Amino acid sequence: MKQERKQIDLKNIRITDSLFGSYVKQVSEKIIPYQWKILNDQLEGADKTYCIENFRIAAGELEGARKGVVFQDTDLYKWLESVAYTIAGGKGGKFEPLADEVIELVGRAQEPDGYLNTYFTVNAPERKWKNLIEGHELYTAGHMIEAAVAYYHATGKTAFLEIAKKNADLIGKVFGRGEGQRRGYPGHQEIELALVKLYRVTGEQKYLDTAKYFIEERGTQPNYLAEELRERGGFEFFPDLQDYDLAYSQADIPPVEQKKAQGHSVRDMYMCSAMADLAGECEDERLLSACKAIWENMTQRQMYITGGIGTSGFRERFTTDYDLPNATNYSETCASIGLMMFGQRLSAVTGDAGYYDSVERALYNTVLAGINIEGDRYFYVNPLEVVPEFCTQHTYMNHVKPIRQKWFSIACCPPNVARTLASLGQYVYAQEGSSILIHQFISSEVQTETKGGTTAVKMDSTLMQDGKVGIHVESEKGCSLKIRIPAYAENWKIFSGEKEEKPEIQNGYITMVLPAGEHTVTLDLDVHPHWVAANDQVRADAGKAALVKGPVVYCLEEVENGKLLSQVCVKPNEEVKEEPSPEGLVGNIPALTYPGTRIKNAGLGNQLYGALEIEKEATQLTAIPYCLWNNRGEGEMLVWHRVLI
Amino acid sequence: MKQERKQIDLKNIRITDSLFGSYVKQVSEKIIPYQWKILNDQLEGADKTYCIENFRIAAGELEGARKGVVFQDTDLYKWLESVAYTIAGGKGGKFEPLADEVIELVGRAQEPDGYLNTYFTVNAPERKWKNLIEGHELYTAGHMIEAAVAYYHATGKTAFLEIAKKNADLIGKVFGRGEGQRRGYPGHQEIELALVKLYRVTGEQKYLDTAKYFIEERGTQPNYLAEELRERGGFEFFPDLQDYDLAYSQADIPPVEQKKAQGHSVRDMYMCSAMADLAGECEDERLLSACKAIWENMTQRQMYITGGIGTSGFRERFTTDYDLPNATNYSETCASIGLMMFGQRLSAVTGDAGYYDSVERALYNTVLAGINIEGDRYFYVNPLEVVPEFCTQHTYMNHVKPIRQKWFSIACCPPNVARTLASLGQYVYAQEGSSILIHQFISSEVQTETKGGTTAVKMDSTLMQDGKVGIHVESEKGCSLKIRIPAYAENWKIFSGEKEEKPEIQNGYITMVLPAGEHTVTLDLDVHPHWVAANDQVRADAGKAALVKGPVVYCLEEVENGKLLSQVCVKPNEEVKEEPSPEGLVGNIPALTYPGTRIKNAGLGNQLYGALEIEKEATQLTAIPYCLWNNRGEGEMLVWHRVLI
Repeated sequence: MKQERKQIDLKNIRITDSLFGSYVKQVSEKIIPYQWKILNDQLEGADKTYCIENFRIAAGELEGARKGVVFQDTDLYKWLESVAYTIAGGKGGKFEPLADEVIELVGRAQEPDGYLNTYFTVNAPERKWKNLIEGHELYTAGHMIEAAVAYYHATGKTAFLEIAKKNADLIGKVFGRGEGQRRGYPGHQEIELALVKLYRVTGEQKYLDTAKYFIEERGTQPNYLAEELRERGGFEFFPDLQDYDLAYSQADIPPVEQKKAQGHSVRDMYMCSAMADLAGECEDERLLSACKAIWENMTQRQMYITGGIGTSGFRERFTTDYDLPNATNYSETCASIGLMMFGQRLSAVTGDAGYYDSVERALYNTVLAGINIEGDRYFYVNPLEVVPEFCTQHTYMNHVKPIRQKWFSIACCPPNVARTLASLGQYVYAQEGSSILIHQFISSEVQTETKGGTTAVKMDSTLMQDGKVGIHVESEKGCSLKIRIPAYAENWKIFSGEKEEKPEIQNGYITMVLPAGEHTVTLDLDVHPHWVAANDQVRADAGKAALVKGPVVYCLEEVENGKLLSQVCVKPNEEVKEEPSPEGLVGNIPALTYPGTRIKNAGLGNQLYGALEIEKEATQLTAIPYCLWNNRGEGEMLVWHRVLI
Repeated sequence: MKQERKQIDLKNIRITDSLFGSYVKQVSEKIIPYQWKILNDQLEGADKTYCIENFRIAAGELEGARKGVVFQDTDLYKWLESVAYTIAGGKGGKFEPLADEVIELVGRAQEPDGYLNTYFTVNAPERKWKNLIEGHELYTAGHMIEAAVAYYHATGKTAFLEIAKKNADLIGKVFGRGEGQRRGYPGHQEIELALVKLYRVTGEQKYLDTAKYFIEERGTQPNYLAEELRERGGFEFFPDLQDYDLAYSQADIPPVEQKKAQGHSVRDMYMCSAMADLAGECEDERLLSACKAIWENMTQRQMYITGGIGTSGFRERFTTDYDLPNATNYSETCASIGLMMFGQRLSAVTGDAGYYDSVERALYNTVLAGINIEGDRYFYVNPLEVVPEFCTQHTYMNHVKPIRQKWFSIACCPPNVARTLASLGQYVYAQEGSSILIHQFISSEVQTETKGGTTAVKMDSTLMQDGKVGIHVESEKGCSLKIRIPAYAENWKIFSGEKEEKPEIQNGYITMVLPAGEHTVTLDLDVHPHWVAANDQVRADAGKAALVKGPVVYCLEEVENGKLLSQVCVKPNEEVKEEPSPEGLVGNIPALTYPGTRIKNAGLGNQLYGALEIEKEATQLTAIPYCLWNNRGEGEMLVWHRVLI
């Protein structure tokens, strides 16, 4: 299972898609400048981050205490990572001087031994590495390393990479099984996948070894985190972590023995991403089979139809199989990004395209829902059913916001969305030898080398309109296209020029071998709208159906359909029509219209409970893509429709 | 509106009911001895309470730190209150020596100035009265006073009452608007209603004045609790209270201005109970109208069909109108007890029986569900829909237990249920001059004085079997019966002997004037089983119906109906049959059987999402009273049935 797949440099990919292109454009035009203001506390009405200020203090250039959450530094690192991808994508040149400058600041904030964390440097130098459960030092380092690798890829400049290596070297010295080393591992995983990236860019084995150590040591006995907690006797940064359990941070048993998605969902996905990487790099079958088991459990038992994961608002975590309530759930934007990262890697190591079905589901629904069309408002939490009045603060619904927010005091999601959009090309394309892999049907262009010559691919996708994907190839020396056939496309056709071909699906791909020259390949996917049901074990969806078209899940919004969406029922055999996308949305994705029935309890008036007297009222419904909801003001929203049986 | 209604001494009431009698019997036979063990940490497998130990330490008779939650003393006080009612009820004589002994211990734990709280006396004498938000000193004092008043009523002994008066005198000195007094009020209300009781038993106006002060001062500006919090800067006892808001403790605006049930539900109910008392005692119309508004909002917007209140597991609080999810809710047993207390008082001050509709709903459903048939297991939280596997710890469902628990570290509910059952007679009967009021149709006997002679009433109720209530009266000098006609009994009849009478309903009562002598009055209430719907605003109950018979809400349990109850649908026009109560239950309440349909998604197999292919399967359903669920092992439970339209 030696991994053959390679990523294509983002410099060689351009996203031109009508839906995604509009968001990707926002990254350079809006999000990066907006987030820069936030990092500098220059945005009115947003919580202060103290982010840049903290680095200045750590560098000894400002006086005062370091403020903000303990992992606030990561906001800057994720911003830098987005900037790097944007530079690679050709739109970020204007940010490069700013990035260089702030990288210098990061360098000045680094201690001579390589240590880099503004909280501990300034506020608690004596507490370094002593609170792995809450301190987030390794998590923060991981985001720094990811940004540094990205910046090196984008610019060829080594200053940031040197900072990262120096820090990673220190971490490799501090942690391990040798004498005088700490046998710890991160409370919040992230460093592991970052170290794999650092290994891949530097070729230095020691980084891979440290990543491997962190995964192998995790959850072994005696349990390091349990001991740490016992010795500390309480919580330093997150007092509400009392009643902490090791499964929360996937440290109850070693990762290789884990069979289910569990605990804090982002931690789990970041850990699994590293596990998949390591399975490939180290050809570790046991690690790979743990990855497969966790993936299977997650996608077949614990995932929303929108690709959301992590049911519990309390502790942002997985709960148990089939526990998928629609209004109270967490489904953090970052967790779905983590799912994308994990799926991408599992596909790379197994060579199976099937993992991209859930990656696509997460991308087109929860991840895209995480940001508004203008690129300046964010969802952290992604319910499938919203009644704005019910999202009351200081209650069990405190986490659910009925409108996207400017920013969050714990702001992992906004920069995470930005870096994902900015690196989207690597979810669309990959390469295996002379084969160019196409995983997503997002209009774009890519150029790469195959058989020693240049191959350029231009994909014109109208997937969400008519299911058609035109792929134009110009290859100097010839190439193959390996195209993923998504599970939702039961009836698909492929044409080489005008001629229909009948390739077999292998590992989720069809392969088109193309000699040198120009070719037009046309894929025709079946994206007719249809109703989907959930497994009977999902109590929350009993008697309900969701409307999907291709990878996109649709929802009803109050703006078209009025209040009390819970009254609405549908008959799945009624015709669903495609209509032009409503004004104010992007991507030109058709709205879907269909007849429905409102079931009312007549005569109850203001009474809370009373006689059951059903009244039916015919209505016409209009659904829009879930990812675009709440772009036209606050209102009710509903994914799962009651079915009139 | 001078309140004419008086409670009848519990000494003169005996409960003989087949349902309630079995629980009341458990109070003396099981619950009081069981809880005594718990107070003394003699019960294996239950969390330690340190309760009696703490009093010993405070009395200087044991060394060591005082342990347990800050309000742990209340466990003993509520136990003593139950003992007092049980003594009054003629079954508690055996506990009296033990109670006298422990009351002496309480006296020894009291400081010379009257201060009485084991936590602050032992652990933090310098912090007395300084943390009203979290410290629960006034709450604890309130439960002590309630117990002392009850013990005095039951035994005529004054030792405990003297302790209570001495403590209340101190509180009256410490708090108020005078010079050198604190202008504070309790973070957790309870003392107010206790002081009214103390005023009523002693006739001393100062206790009423202090109660009035606490209600009037609450929520005024500058806000005492906000100031206290600002000065303290953080939380001492409950670190997870960060993000505390004043509405949580109903202190954002003065109680007299409050129009909705809000904040922590038990606090709200205890406060409202005192407000209703004070409205009557002080003939305060503004206070009364606030009570009425809060009651109306609560019972018509924020109450479950089971009489459960307080939707949010986070902070045990009310949320917003119509937010009544069935699986994640809190609906604390104590909150429904608080509702009973509030409704009882509102009825007393207004003379309106209608308030007892919700009191009865809470009593027959949520409160009774709080305890098992054997009297040794308790529910704190009362959902209307349970899938045991989904009640995962350390998640958003952490508060929901699928089986009753032995005890809780914060154990307000078990002793609260016990004292409510032990004082049940006062929810059944009351007196206004020569009228004996009957509020509940629970078989029992009462004796009281009317027109200077003795009147004895014997009620034989088969309400839950055939809706019949036989009332046998022997009156020396004559009396009236004022009988509540419940809202569920649309068709009712009343007979004097064999003769049907046609009295008018006034304020929810019918009145039967009975001359001296023996009489038999028979009430025939309509308790045919029927389906009830919720207001369309309650999204959680859209398309659903609940089956009720009289005041009892029915539910499906896995033991009779299998798993996946969410598949079950019913047609409300199908016949519902009454069958004998299943084995293992109490009260001889019929089970209800009716045809149903299981709706299955055929062909999904292990897939999480897939094509909608509905398959119907006819099934026969058996429902039992909600209050009796989970007495026959762990399993699924469901109140609201999907309706096949």
